[in-house]
Amino acid sequence: MARSVVLPVAPSRGRLRPLGLDEVRITGGFWARRREINATATLGHCRDWMARVGWIGNFRAAVEGRIERDRRGREFADSDVYKLLEAMAWEAAGHGADSALDTQIAELTESIAPAQEPDGYLNTAFGRPGQQPRYSDLEWGHELYCYGHLIQAGVAQARARGEGELTKIARRAADHVCATFGPGGIEGVCGHPEIEPALVELARLTGEQRYLDQAALFVDRRGHRTLADTEFGRAYYQDDLPVRQATVLRGHAVRALYLAAGAVDVAVETGDDALLAAVVRQWEATVARRTYLTGGMGSHHRDESFGDDFVLPPDRAYSETCAGVASVMLSWRLLLATGEPRFADLAERTLFNVVAASPSEDGRAFFYANTLHRRRRGTVPATDVDSPRAESSLRAPWFAVSCCPTNVARTLAQLPAYLATVDDDGVQLHQYADAEIATSLAGGHDVALRVRTDYPAGGAVTVRIDRSPDRPWTLSLRVPGWARGAAAWLVEPDGTRRSVPVGTATVARRFRPGDEVRLELPVAPRWIGADPRIDAVRGTVAVQRGPLVYCAESVDLPDGHEADAVRVDPSSPPEDGPDAEGTVIVAGELTGHAEQSDAPWPYAPLDRPATTPPDTDGPAEIVLVPYRSWANRGPSTMRVWLPTAEPDPPAAPS
Amino acid sequence: MARSVVLPVAPSRGRLRPLGLDEVRITGGFWARRREINATATLGHCRDWMARVGWIGNFRAAVEGRIERDRRGREFADSDVYKLLEAMAWEAAGHGADSALDTQIAELTESIAPAQEPDGYLNTAFGRPGQQPRYSDLEWGHELYCYGHLIQAGVAQARARGEGELTKIARRAADHVCATFGPGGIEGVCGHPEIEPALVELARLTGEQRYLDQAALFVDRRGHRTLADTEFGRAYYQDDLPVRQATVLRGHAVRALYLAAGAVDVAVETGDDALLAAVVRQWEATVARRTYLTGGMGSHHRDESFGDDFVLPPDRAYSETCAGVASVMLSWRLLLATGEPRFADLAERTLFNVVAASPSEDGRAFFYANTLHRRRRGTVPATDVDSPRAESSLRAPWFAVSCCPTNVARTLAQLPAYLATVDDDGVQLHQYADAEIATSLAGGHDVALRVRTDYPAGGAVTVRIDRSPDRPWTLSLRVPGWARGAAAWLVEPDGTRRSVPVGTATVARRFRPGDEVRLELPVAPRWIGADPRIDAVRGTVAVQRGPLVYCAESVDLPDGHEADAVRVDPSSPPEDGPDAEGTVIVAGELTGHAEQSDAPWPYAPLDRPATTPPDTDGPAEIVLVPYRSWANRGPSTMRVWLPTAEPDPPAAPS
Repeated sequence: MARSVVLPVAPSRGRLRPLGLDEVRITGGFWARRREINATATLGHCRDWMARVGWIGNFRAAVEGRIERDRRGREFADSDVYKLLEAMAWEAAGHGADSALDTQIAELTESIAPAQEPDGYLNTAFGRPGQQPRYSDLEWGHELYCYGHLIQAGVAQARARGEGELTKIARRAADHVCATFGPGGIEGVCGHPEIEPALVELARLTGEQRYLDQAALFVDRRGHRTLADTEFGRAYYQDDLPVRQATVLRGHAVRALYLAAGAVDVAVETGDDALLAAVVRQWEATVARRTYLTGGMGSHHRDESFGDDFVLPPDRAYSETCAGVASVMLSWRLLLATGEPRFADLAERTLFNVVAASPSEDGRAFFYANTLHRRRRGTVPATDVDSPRAESSLRAPWFAVSCCPTNVARTLAQLPAYLATVDDDGVQLHQYADAEIATSLAGGHDVALRVRTDYPAGGAVTVRIDRSPDRPWTLSLRVPGWARGAAAWLVEPDGTRRSVPVGTATVARRFRPGDEVRLELPVAPRWIGADPRIDAVRGTVAVQRGPLVYCAESVDLPDGHEADAVRVDPSSPPEDGPDAEGTVIVAGELTGHAEQSDAPWPYAPLDRPATTPPDTDGPAEIVLVPYRSWANRGPSTMRVWLPTAEPDPPAAPS
Repeated sequence: MARSVVLPVAPSRGRLRPLGLDEVRITGGFWARRREINATATLGHCRDWMARVGWIGNFRAAVEGRIERDRRGREFADSDVYKLLEAMAWEAAGHGADSALDTQIAELTESIAPAQEPDGYLNTAFGRPGQQPRYSDLEWGHELYCYGHLIQAGVAQARARGEGELTKIARRAADHVCATFGPGGIEGVCGHPEIEPALVELARLTGEQRYLDQAALFVDRRGHRTLADTEFGRAYYQDDLPVRQATVLRGHAVRALYLAAGAVDVAVETGDDALLAAVVRQWEATVARRTYLTGGMGSHHRDESFGDDFVLPPDRAYSETCAGVASVMLSWRLLLATGEPRFADLAERTLFNVVAASPSEDGRAFFYANTLHRRRRGTVPATDVDSPRAESSLRAPWFAVSCCPTNVARTLAQLPAYLATVDDDGVQLHQYADAEIATSLAGGHDVALRVRTDYPAGGAVTVRIDRSPDRPWTLSLRVPGWARGAAAWLVEPDGTRRSVPVGTATVARRFRPGDEVRLELPVAPRWIGADPRIDAVRGTVAVQRGPLVYCAESVDLPDGHEADAVRVDPSSPPEDGPDAEGTVIVAGELTGHAEQSDAPWPYAPLDRPATTPPDTDGPAEIVLVPYRSWANRGPSTMRVWLPTAEPDPPAAPS
């Protein structure tokens, strides 16, 4: 079996070798359902909206000379058309060669193609009469950013179907970028990183060194203050410090993460271990100090940026969906480069609690920001108008800045590629879902596995070997970091059962078809506390069950209580709910807290509190639901971090 | 003695009658020092900066036909020139008639005057060749907002010196506004309220009903969605709900507060009790649920807006200086209308902890946002470039959006007017400072008082009667709400000493010159807790001493500890420091908290915390300083809300 080419990320070296979408199929369970909705609802939803709001029409308007008057959407609107094309291409990889998706891709490509200038330039927001000149606004113009998404779409088409018109458009654009921004050209970078990983991937696809060189040049150029200092500062677009010198991700979260992903790609292709180590160091500091329990990154609404260390307010969490997507992109690249399971841990957390939280259950509405605490019931948004981006009450069908829906779509379309890898020793499973995997090991020996699990509802994962070379090899299974402290068990084909620590569990043997390996992960719900330096959650606890973060949502509380009424008792362990819906029950009480009357001034001496303690309805069992599923049952209030019963106030000073 | 006209706010009716800047002099103490710095440093600093950054030059550029090319600053830059003029006019009121300030006012006015169009229109950002047309962008254009500040400056000149050229410019602009936006004209409002209180004050100055009618029309028009829905929503500029229907202040804090101030002015002049009651209701809800301990309002950085109820994160407090100024404006109007001391309470809190926190000790640098928790030492900003507005490390000399410095300047210039009022029964003292007050009571009888106090350092306030009519009258003294629970004492001229509750203490008698009334306020430091619905400060306490909010600042901590190292023990009462600097000492400990090493992931099961408890240096006495004085001694970290020693973790679940 030849090495697959249907790969979102195809490094030429690194610790692990990724598997293609023709090698891994997700056959059931949560992600299969989500992928089905993505294919049947979300892709069409995005296309219809972009037709309706005019973003697709921008290309024709450009060709017809009426773009100054008729252009719709923000300066980066082109990029969402490209992201949709990328999503369609990866999705098409799982379908027959002449699927309806291919027709849609061809139609969209036909809309775009005539707008490309003879020199390869392609952008509907710049350069035509009445518009700003090309590259006159590298800070905000997003021209290179748009190319990045165009190139990723072109690569997706080439890998899913073979090079087609979209790939050609992308290559012409990339050639234009190299000619314009290469040595002797404009010595600038784009305000929004994204071109970097795209150019590396195009180099991997085509074998053209110049694309890699250009990506490396962009990575090296950044941090040398070629972009203007704006209200948000140069850290906003990571132009404050060279990538090699930075110690933590900072500024706009999506920009920071796309740049880091591109830097890993450059480091891997050029063998630049120092650059790779710099990104790993930044990832470590960011995960330790600037990441929400959900895996969400970026707490600032104002500039969509990371905050200072430990500034992680739940009620003002921004945690942009696209930052979740970008974080998965980065973690995946670091996993391939290093083989370390901590990167797959974060990817799992982020996929389940950020990426999966964004779309509604029907795949036609989305969260842009993913708050961890909602105090006020929202209103049902109109389904026929786009929404402001950061309003976090209910999911909205579309946004004026609508980067998230297509980003979720392309991630779900390529998701099977994130499940497993191979190396010279064997097969590694990183994410667990019902799946079938067929690939080849070193020496060209075919191997096929079938994974069966209801994870994350249950913790048992069974891997059946369907085909195996007649020699020993190693099956590796990730034991998530959250399983620390509770025994994970591995059951080998011969019945050996052993406790395994977090990290990687391995079974090395001469497998035979029909052999089964079983991993048992302790998914029982558990109380989680935070580092006390995260001031915003002092005095609260959260619940996690397996990789899933839970929340209290008002629709599950009796008597019209809001989520802020919940007080929990962490001396009782959380328990699984009696239903099959994945609920968790915790002990606590419901107070009149949210509804209590106000003192005129909410601050008072400790010995005479401003408000009397709220009434309580007495001990209660409180139902929690997975965070990602909240806000699917109408307007509600919600919180992830739950206050413990308030302690007695300290003795009043005499 | 005739009624003074040197009044920032001169309602024609209301419970209390304000006193003019020629009736009240602040003679010593904190505010006298701040006013001296304002007069001798800040006014010149603002003028020099606006000359340098070109905002003053915009007017000449407009006249000379080169504004399209040469205009500098944001669309509202004109308004800061007007606010400076207003500040200069009020400051001039305390000086001789031909002060240097008068020369500066005349020079600035000469710069402005030629830019006014024959029809009264005056704005350097709109309407000339190459600029957007007049009133083509009511959402963001700030044209009416700029008139508001122009009119307030013109009124200040008239009241301080008699009507002059600036007043004439303002009247022509107001006439233009009435002609353009009156009945039959443009049915719109300005995205930024401010014209409303200005027009009412001009009506009070001139007796012209049409200005009042126009202000009332603007107030009534707002909330009817004549402004476009933007990313921030119509609540941003209070166009979501009519003023009469709203129950709380919302949206952009400065806009909300200026509008509310204008609505009070309209309500008072038109006898519209329902409108007044609506604003009082909004003030009550805002104070009870949306105000920081400092009096600061507006927690969102993104849109400079109020957040949802109880969303008051200390480390992401925006608490814009201008919102503090606007809050004082609103409270002052409500105090005059109702006579209720709660409005003076909030004004005091806000003046000491927001308005006074903004300027540096030398009056040449300012905070735009006033955070309550700074985790990272800032860097010393350059003194010769303007700064982004919301960076809260150290004060900056100027901002690209530089509304705050001139707003502080005009507030300090008019501050004496906020100290006292009269009514038919006598004199009311609202704010305490060394001061001399000379006015007349009903019937034209002269009264003169001398106030001596080192408040807020000390709690004793002595009021000596220097002149009194030979009939009984009432001296009223505000007993601040923070004095609740500790006895305030009033000592009457005859030696009677009685405990007085918070609110208003009165002495009614036939005063004789030389009589003294003494008020003793319990300014000793005390622990303050917050309503538990303010999630962001759970498990922390603050210290207040008199009206002053305190903070821990790293420069006062030993061994290089950061403010986040502080843990306090609220079972010991805070005590005054041994020095004369107003420090407070609290018991607690300094932990290695801020410096401790990281766990790879900062969340963990309760029974195995992610990080080991930080080392502690053992019990310590921790020095706190008044919040308003922080960041005057170089880069530092700071926090107002101090964690109590962490409780034992809850028993781990079995």
